[in-house]
Amino acid sequence: MFVSDCLNVNQQGHLTIGGCDTLELAAAFGTPLYVMDEATIVNNCRKYVDSIKTYYNGNGRVYYASKAFCCKEICRIMENEQMGLDVVSAGEIYTAMSTGFPAERLCFHGNNKTSAEINYALDCGVGRFMVDNLTELALLNRLALERNKKAVVLLRIKPGIDAHTHNFIRTGQIDSKFGLALETGEAEEAIKEAITMAGINLTGIHCHIGSQIFDLAPFELAAEVMVNFMADMRDRHGAKFTELNLGGGFGIKYVPEQDPVPYDRYMEAVSETVKKTCLARDMDTPFIMLEPGRSIVASAGITLYTVGAVKEIPGIRTYVSIDGGMGDNPRYALYQAEYAAVVADRAAEKPTATVTIAGKCCESGDLIQEHTAIQPAEAGNILAVFATGAYNYSMASNYNRIPRPAAVMIRDQEPRVIIKRETFDDLVHNDV
Amino acid sequence: MFVSDCLNVNQQGHLTIGGCDTLELAAAFGTPLYVMDEATIVNNCRKYVDSIKTYYNGNGRVYYASKAFCCKEICRIMENEQMGLDVVSAGEIYTAMSTGFPAERLCFHGNNKTSAEINYALDCGVGRFMVDNLTELALLNRLALERNKKAVVLLRIKPGIDAHTHNFIRTGQIDSKFGLALETGEAEEAIKEAITMAGINLTGIHCHIGSQIFDLAPFELAAEVMVNFMADMRDRHGAKFTELNLGGGFGIKYVPEQDPVPYDRYMEAVSETVKKTCLARDMDTPFIMLEPGRSIVASAGITLYTVGAVKEIPGIRTYVSIDGGMGDNPRYALYQAEYAAVVADRAAEKPTATVTIAGKCCESGDLIQEHTAIQPAEAGNILAVFATGAYNYSMASNYNRIPRPAAVMIRDQEPRVIIKRETFDDLVHNDV
Repeated sequence: MFVSDCLNVNQQGHLTIGGCDTLELAAAFGTPLYVMDEATIVNNCRKYVDSIKTYYNGNGRVYYASKAFCCKEICRIMENEQMGLDVVSAGEIYTAMSTGFPAERLCFHGNNKTSAEINYALDCGVGRFMVDNLTELALLNRLALERNKKAVVLLRIKPGIDAHTHNFIRTGQIDSKFGLALETGEAEEAIKEAITMAGINLTGIHCHIGSQIFDLAPFELAAEVMVNFMADMRDRHGAKFTELNLGGGFGIKYVPEQDPVPYDRYMEAVSETVKKTCLARDMDTPFIMLEPGRSIVASAGITLYTVGAVKEIPGIRTYVSIDGGMGDNPRYALYQAEYAAVVADRAAEKPTATVTIAGKCCESGDLIQEHTAIQPAEAGNILAVFATGAYNYSMASNYNRIPRPAAVMIRDQEPRVIIKRETFDDLVHNDV
Repeated sequence: MFVSDCLNVNQQGHLTIGGCDTLELAAAFGTPLYVMDEATIVNNCRKYVDSIKTYYNGNGRVYYASKAFCCKEICRIMENEQMGLDVVSAGEIYTAMSTGFPAERLCFHGNNKTSAEINYALDCGVGRFMVDNLTELALLNRLALERNKKAVVLLRIKPGIDAHTHNFIRTGQIDSKFGLALETGEAEEAIKEAITMAGINLTGIHCHIGSQIFDLAPFELAAEVMVNFMADMRDRHGAKFTELNLGGGFGIKYVPEQDPVPYDRYMEAVSETVKKTCLARDMDTPFIMLEPGRSIVASAGITLYTVGAVKEIPGIRTYVSIDGGMGDNPRYALYQAEYAAVVADRAAEKPTATVTIAGKCCESGDLIQEHTAIQPAEAGNILAVFATGAYNYSMASNYNRIPRPAAVMIRDQEPRVIIKRETFDDLVHNDV
């Protein structure tokens, strides 16, 4: 009925998530409120993990891309599921380490890791460095040698595949701030350097071809390009690769019209390609790493808001104001991202109103969605915006000095706070 | 030479701000670093305040729009300058109150103030409520009466003037989430209601016609429309208005090509219009309120970054990576905002390189500027981005769990920290 299986409607006609009445959640924890369903997250993890077991003999690991939603409790859930974590900053490493997450299962990304971050990662014993560029490669080699360590490295490659998606979240093509280009010889150069470096143990290569992709073909093509490149580098330079990181980018259903590929079909298709290409190139099949983020958490989350003023501008549009906005969800302002929403008080009713959902920030662009169909809303209603589990809390700001919302996780119909609501004292905490 | 008078180049060829060497600031306080020049802020305040003295007999007040950059020290500076503060949330009120700022000089804005915020504002004794809509008017009346108070109110009006600027930051026209429309009779309706309400003391009206405006004509037109509307409402409903809030929106120089109107010319022109229209309508000239934000602080601030990897993609572009990005300045990602930048190490040299400045977030859209001319940059250089005093710190997030930068204020060539750098502990502070 809705964009996620964890959502439903109860006998009072209220929206539920994980079996909990959203109006009760709003009353108990206040709004705006991020609410996540743990079973959905766990199921998504298992789909990926199981697909590697089923189609690739278990020879791989799934790294949750923390940037989608990072907090201590998410790290604990990932550890329970025996996932790895794709981390992109010292702050994400710190969060994981503070829960006792095994550093060996962290995979450190980023186009501009600082010396301080690399040192911290080396000291923590981070398992894998995804090296983005030649400057970083030299820096990592030097810092590892200073510590008498050998950093385990995969090089981030731009395979030259442009998965059709929103321009801003497209990667993989040659004009990207990320990675080393195949076409220009830059990637080959990096491999030649890396295999001579005493502080570097080069085990493989990485690619990430985009975000919110709904098609299998670009993933299969990327896998083929990557395996062939590994074989080429073996033939030309004696590089011994054992690992292939194929990144993430798997699409999710933000609005009912979208139809993402089931996640196990991805691994089925890609396994086939990898095995076939390895056979053709006389290569052992590599250990596969996947990095889903959005597709693990987005559909597990919703945001609950309280409706304030409803402003009908005759002949133009109706603005439904909420008590949050671009501060807790900047994705419409940034990308005109699509979201579906319902009035949680009457979620079973037909969405007969076409409205613009406006945040409370003093900025005209502070909108969550324009011209979207919801049930008629009035002040005091609870509005639920769906599929906000990814890139909402993680991108949240204190714009207008509005405290960031709390986040609640539901397991077995029991909600628990996993991130406390910011206080006014938090806002001025670092003000001198 | 640069976009702000507080910037210069010293004998070593380094960029200076407020007479301080930016390389020394970066070394002393780390990067990324927001740096503000206090004299510029103070001068900007005084230009506005003096213009009211010169052209309007001092019959007005300047309210700094805190949302541009709000922290305790800015509130103290505004208090020193006898400014008022335009606040848009309980968090901004809290910040001001925590410095002992007089609540009487706060003017509370927002299209969707919550009950909790209104109660807090009433309890603090906030001087003026800029009421956005009929729902808020009724709510404020009720909450004021519960406290045996009378809230001093100006109604936010959409004068129907569309100042030509970026679509996202345009307001004033009828299709806006802000304010009450003139054309539809909504504004008149609100005035009729407000003057009957026992908890409301309606003293005037407010408008805000847009942001980053470079032309005087729309401001003059808005003033004329507003004064005429006040006179109309007096004639038709006996409304006694004594205050007119003309908002903000004054343009600043982000890049050298821009040429904002000197701020005193604004008050000169608008005073003339107000006086003339009042005379024509047989009305006393109202107390004028102005709400500049960006034009007070933007040009006083710069951001210092350390350059990391420089990635030249032959025939396409060169990415210069910095150790910050959309986390501390999301304005390019949001609005493709223009910024000028220099390599602070050789600020006197010609900007012979055309580059894209890329942030360190794991997101392709994390750019600060594309195809911009700077001095040739290499890893370890300090890059300064200009005019970041407004809507940078205030919109900053912890995307990728990157701590928000420190902010330093310079007075008499002495830097002092006004906002401490976030720590990793701060990042997980609310994680359960």
